[in-house]
Amino acid sequence: MDFNFTTLGTASALPTNSRYPSAHVLNIRGRLFLIDCGEAAQILLFRKGISILKIDNIFISHLHGDHCFGLFGLLSSMGMKGRTAKLTIHAPVELKGMLDFFMRAFEGDAMNYEIEHNVLDATMKKGEMQKIFESRNIEAFAFPLNHRVPTFGFLFREKEPAPNVRKELLEPYGITLKEIAILKRGEDVCREDGTILASKDFTYIPFRPRSFAYCSDTAPFEKLAQVIDSVDLLYHEATFAQDLKGTAQTTFHSTAKDAAEVALKANVKKLVLGHFSSRYVSVEHLRDEAREIFPNTELAERGARFDIELEKY
Amino acid sequence: MDFNFTTLGTASALPTNSRYPSAHVLNIRGRLFLIDCGEAAQILLFRKGISILKIDNIFISHLHGDHCFGLFGLLSSMGMKGRTAKLTIHAPVELKGMLDFFMRAFEGDAMNYEIEHNVLDATMKKGEMQKIFESRNIEAFAFPLNHRVPTFGFLFREKEPAPNVRKELLEPYGITLKEIAILKRGEDVCREDGTILASKDFTYIPFRPRSFAYCSDTAPFEKLAQVIDSVDLLYHEATFAQDLKGTAQTTFHSTAKDAAEVALKANVKKLVLGHFSSRYVSVEHLRDEAREIFPNTELAERGARFDIELEKY
Repeated sequence: MDFNFTTLGTASALPTNSRYPSAHVLNIRGRLFLIDCGEAAQILLFRKGISILKIDNIFISHLHGDHCFGLFGLLSSMGMKGRTAKLTIHAPVELKGMLDFFMRAFEGDAMNYEIEHNVLDATMKKGEMQKIFESRNIEAFAFPLNHRVPTFGFLFREKEPAPNVRKELLEPYGITLKEIAILKRGEDVCREDGTILASKDFTYIPFRPRSFAYCSDTAPFEKLAQVIDSVDLLYHEATFAQDLKGTAQTTFHSTAKDAAEVALKANVKKLVLGHFSSRYVSVEHLRDEAREIFPNTELAERGARFDIELEKY
Repeated sequence: MDFNFTTLGTASALPTNSRYPSAHVLNIRGRLFLIDCGEAAQILLFRKGISILKIDNIFISHLHGDHCFGLFGLLSSMGMKGRTAKLTIHAPVELKGMLDFFMRAFEGDAMNYEIEHNVLDATMKKGEMQKIFESRNIEAFAFPLNHRVPTFGFLFREKEPAPNVRKELLEPYGITLKEIAILKRGEDVCREDGTILASKDFTYIPFRPRSFAYCSDTAPFEKLAQVIDSVDLLYHEATFAQDLKGTAQTTFHSTAKDAAEVALKANVKKLVLGHFSSRYVSVEHLRDEAREIFPNTELAERGARFDIELEKY
């Protein structure tokens, strides 16, 4: 029952000799989601021992090169590795031109798998969300951010699990399999003798559903906190320190302080900072700046993995 | 008076956890030439401490992704780093679509430098060459290879240096400045007293011009050896070992043995093998296979630099 987030690339627009452009892997119960796909993402996945064929969903926040130039190589390699399963790329409408060019110029017949472009809804207002992915246990949403081009954040969460029946009550009450099914559906059992077994008394939610939100790139804005409210882990860009607040505003980015203020307001459990300006060789001062406002802050160092532990009830 | 070749990426179509796609830097007397530009080339340049703004000429052998997907990031970063100098990309005509797409979708106004596409001549026959670059001391040529798509090799060489006058003869013969100029032009001096000072007796070529050839990707063909004849250093692809000769033929690639046979026939001084299939974790057997035919063979390991020393006469 894994739920973890691995940072592959932590650079902003310009990579450095130690930071690759944005790319991240979210693993929810063994299902892998690639979030942004900067240059060299495929190589960083290989290094982590992650099979690129296990990725069926890619989420692209926006069409700036440092968030998508790794798609060319990754999509090619998936073809060469014999992929046949459909790949879904959740991305702004601008991805279309890139995919068209890529298929026309580079791949054509060589790719034996379908690429579905799930177009993110550019008409959403800030504070709104769009469900873009759903499986039996997981759902994911896109929401607008505040950047120079159409940009989206992503929210992933486990669905509330089906209730379990309290085993210790089964025998004392002589509960039948048929009654268990009713109780687990959330309905009460009315026996012929008039006894009522209330679902809420006989069942419990086995664990607390976990959640993760990704916000890159964005300037801070009023309604951001409400869509990422109370997530367990928030990845938020922190391109600059607060002394460059002016530059952050002009370029529609956040400072570490901005990110911490969002984390505090949204009441998240943990904050991870990434997308660091190439001007910073060390970024510890960004963490320190954020911790003054939101103490549970960590840095997205390349290869670092952040686990959200399962909390059983 | 440097003349060296640095391998950045040594993979073939599929990168691995330790091999990046094709990218190389040739340094001739401080002038840097980027040869192929696979994904992550810019990051590997940063790691080598090489300023990407020092590169004014890029040579793309062919438009397969593992030789050109790094252009997107590199060209963007050059723009962000404030480049204003013209950049020339020597590449097959197919680069045009890629540049058009890139400029339209990603950069537009953000780039304040001109990109000149020097289109390699697709009408050349095998065994022919086209001069594509010339400076005061260096000239470079493209020549056709034998791959699945139009592909070119590159030959770089120093021009023959101007002759120097033998200093030890100046005083005994009372040679004047005017006479020195004549002798250095390669002309003989006829003095009024009838004495003839032959240029060949009074001058010498100060050093041997050096040369390098790059051949990737290609199947072996008859006329290759003649265009790369006697180069000091030959980089030649060796995607496969000889036991996969059939695969090499089908995919228009070379085996290590093929590369060694070309090196032998062309009488080159040293052979460097690269572009290794992802199926090989270690590639020492490729070197061993080549050395049976051409002993002075090395492997293009990532970051390895091959120096051609200046030989003074």
